[in-house]
Amino acid sequence: MELLKRKIEDEGTVLSGQVLKVDAFLNHQIDPVLMLEIGKEFSRLFAGEGVTKVLTLESSGIAPSVMAALEMKVPVVFARKQKSLTLTDNLYVERVYSFTKQQTNEVTVAKKFLSADDRVLIIDDFLANGEAALGLANIVKAAGAEVAGIGIVIEKSFQPGADKLKAAGYRVESLARVASLDNGKVTFLNNSVSEEDTHVQLV
Amino acid sequence: MELLKRKIEDEGTVLSGQVLKVDAFLNHQIDPVLMLEIGKEFSRLFAGEGVTKVLTLESSGIAPSVMAALEMKVPVVFARKQKSLTLTDNLYVERVYSFTKQQTNEVTVAKKFLSADDRVLIIDDFLANGEAALGLANIVKAAGAEVAGIGIVIEKSFQPGADKLKAAGYRVESLARVASLDNGKVTFLNNSVSEEDTHVQLV
Repeated sequence: MELLKRKIEDEGTVLSGQVLKVDAFLNHQIDPVLMLEIGKEFSRLFAGEGVTKVLTLESSGIAPSVMAALEMKVPVVFARKQKSLTLTDNLYVERVYSFTKQQTNEVTVAKKFLSADDRVLIIDDFLANGEAALGLANIVKAAGAEVAGIGIVIEKSFQPGADKLKAAGYRVESLARVASLDNGKVTFLNNSVSEEDTHVQLV
Repeated sequence: MELLKRKIEDEGTVLSGQVLKVDAFLNHQIDPVLMLEIGKEFSRLFAGEGVTKVLTLESSGIAPSVMAALEMKVPVVFARKQKSLTLTDNLYVERVYSFTKQQTNEVTVAKKFLSADDRVLIIDDFLANGEAALGLANIVKAAGAEVAGIGIVIEKSFQPGADKLKAAGYRVESLARVASLDNGKVTFLNNSVSEEDTHVQLV
């Protein structure tokens, strides 16, 4: 998605060979017009999948997911991250390890919001090691529902997440695929899913 | 806002005289079409205020805020809740006590995302005791910026938050104002800000 790649080039910050900071438009400050375009792109990519629900993880997944769900006219559910839980009777719970933050969160979804006939599109802001997306996919399976696909805003293709998810049989579509962050510079893979050049005025 | 009040009546759950649960469309599962209508309504109400930025609090404030910001064509910033902080040099930090959760969070915004010439619309999902909104307003003031107004999705008018915010000089617009949750029933105040009856198909 050219619009997203340009925004990453213009406003992203490479903090190291591993870390790309996009808090100017995705993770802390959010560009809502870009989010709408991202939502339209996910909707276009997964149009044939019969999606009935979007599932994401708080907080940075919410904005792109709400826009995708708006385009698809389905509800979103955002899984909650919690340090520890006592009452879990009505919840699906997965333990998800974050390599970036070096901590494990319990990720939860209320059972009443996923049913066995749901076809669920999982959306997340970043894909690195794939732990979060796999945790969400496990919750979908625990509900007896199907994963319709996994939509990622920014994939760090030099980390193993995308390969892990594909090996597990999931369709993964990433709107920007970062090949490398070496030498303080973002290098994209050529084969990002959409090469249209939109002329949208971002904020 | 009639559409919102109907949704609260149809899908909200009164857990006690103090607690209204809206996790079916706002706090865990999200209806994106309702969020868009909420965003339009905030945009209409604050159209004359010269808003340059929307400020909210993760996670439940993000969806309505992104839609309001989309309508207004301005960025959103979501403040982060954290238990404790060590490095705060580049952050505005406010301590916010939650009566519901009976815990204090440190609420933070990166300094680079608020500037002295911003006119900031603060949006939150609930208004009860007003602690969160006052914390966000203090962050706006710390940046030397101005609070253009405070937009609330659901106001619990039987709690003191709205009066506190108005006494502090802020314009407060709440889309649904709950007079009482007594006897397991939601009773609205009559004078909610908008009485149009839209015919939007929610999801």
